[in-house]
Amino acid sequence: MRYSLDAGGKRLRPILTLAAAETIAGTPSGTPDAIDLALPAACAVEMIHTYSLIHDDLPAMDDDSLRRGRPTSHVVFGEGMAILAGDGLLTEAFALLAAEPRHPELAVRKIRTIQTIAVAAGGCGMVGGQAMDLQAVGSSTLDQYSLQDMHARKTGALIRAAAVAGAIMGGGREDEIRAVDEYGTHVGLAFQIVDDILDVEGDAKDLGKTAGKDARAGKPTYPSTYGLETSRRLAVERYDAALAALQSAGLAGSRLADIAAWVINRTS
Amino acid sequence: MRYSLDAGGKRLRPILTLAAAETIAGTPSGTPDAIDLALPAACAVEMIHTYSLIHDDLPAMDDDSLRRGRPTSHVVFGEGMAILAGDGLLTEAFALLAAEPRHPELAVRKIRTIQTIAVAAGGCGMVGGQAMDLQAVGSSTLDQYSLQDMHARKTGALIRAAAVAGAIMGGGREDEIRAVDEYGTHVGLAFQIVDDILDVEGDAKDLGKTAGKDARAGKPTYPSTYGLETSRRLAVERYDAALAALQSAGLAGSRLADIAAWVINRTS
Repeated sequence: MRYSLDAGGKRLRPILTLAAAETIAGTPSGTPDAIDLALPAACAVEMIHTYSLIHDDLPAMDDDSLRRGRPTSHVVFGEGMAILAGDGLLTEAFALLAAEPRHPELAVRKIRTIQTIAVAAGGCGMVGGQAMDLQAVGSSTLDQYSLQDMHARKTGALIRAAAVAGAIMGGGREDEIRAVDEYGTHVGLAFQIVDDILDVEGDAKDLGKTAGKDARAGKPTYPSTYGLETSRRLAVERYDAALAALQSAGLAGSRLADIAAWVINRTS
Repeated sequence: MRYSLDAGGKRLRPILTLAAAETIAGTPSGTPDAIDLALPAACAVEMIHTYSLIHDDLPAMDDDSLRRGRPTSHVVFGEGMAILAGDGLLTEAFALLAAEPRHPELAVRKIRTIQTIAVAAGGCGMVGGQAMDLQAVGSSTLDQYSLQDMHARKTGALIRAAAVAGAIMGGGREDEIRAVDEYGTHVGLAFQIVDDILDVEGDAKDLGKTAGKDARAGKPTYPSTYGLETSRRLAVERYDAALAALQSAGLAGSRLADIAAWVINRTS
């Protein structure tokens, strides 16, 4: 569990959680200690993301041997232990989310956060998207709707939930939580579009994982469906929509906007 | 997910949750709708138990092809889908536990229930016990302490948490929750001792799973460590201790006592 967590990575999801909490803390409705309150949720989403990488890399799934610049968990510890490391990270994420209830009002926020994250990571979210991905191998083009739906579940749902968790734990108003939710949806899709582009254009050294493997595995991607230029334009459209969502609740002057810009400009 | 959940099984864990809630409902501190309140927790512990069976049966773990009288998940759906079915059940269990917070006092109970179940299922509980089990293959005798510790984690922790969850959701007093916790610890160990005995004496038709496989896998068990007669005596001692725990909080005249008796007398 520690081997994969400590391997680093971009930490996009926990950063989104903390940035959303920080953004809410700066509003009249925000709780002053919003960032402290959001920290367990930030760690939990990274633990869940890490578990999903360990399981995705297994021989029965994507069968990958390099992740975050290191040999994958099953290469080092064996398949059985890698499955258990993933199971342990997922379970401990919820133990962490449910720790220290402190007072009833916070317990209500925590319950909502747990539900948000669990639904995003579950059968209609990340796990469902991964199942669609597993079934799509070999069909190198997927219709436009199915491709976006698969990505929204597989990658987008947890990115969105990471941002929403920060807004909930920070004590955001309903309209603020809704705006962060919409922002997270667009950022999640932009992230995946750029991931697909980098899988074509990037190199393994920068990425810390095998490049070009989607294409070799015959997986449907944004570039394989729309071409590179249109894919780049779609990512920019998602950036614009993410910023509009923030503006709708008066949250545009925050680090969340910077993160959205990073997501579409990143090279690794 | 549904294939494995619908395969049946003893349903011991959810029955324990509901029996504990029913027991608490009959006390002055109990919430009248204790059983309704405990129902999501009862379902969640069965979902978590089922996920653990799916993953335990994988080729990289126990490599078993028969469970609850049916071919195992990976035999029917392939390894990748079986891993995802387990991941989905585990995640959805927490989504269910966190659904409908209703009012703040219940949110506090739910948070405590989620923490109890997550810790029991996590790295220091079920997943940890499974990791110990994976490492113990080939050492057919384990010292007495390690054997009990492994079983307490692998099987006992979730059985104990199932009972405790019912007591918490039912609104039990601290001393009642503590008594149910102690009861659950003893019942969990008794269950595992009897499981080991049945693995030697039972037949596959009654068990719904492969018999004798622990011995063949060279796994340490109670009979391989203590012999059959002593193992039977140890199970009865655990039953006595479970009843004493219930008596200590005035809960002995409840269905929990009947369940403990069933656990040590069962033949499947």
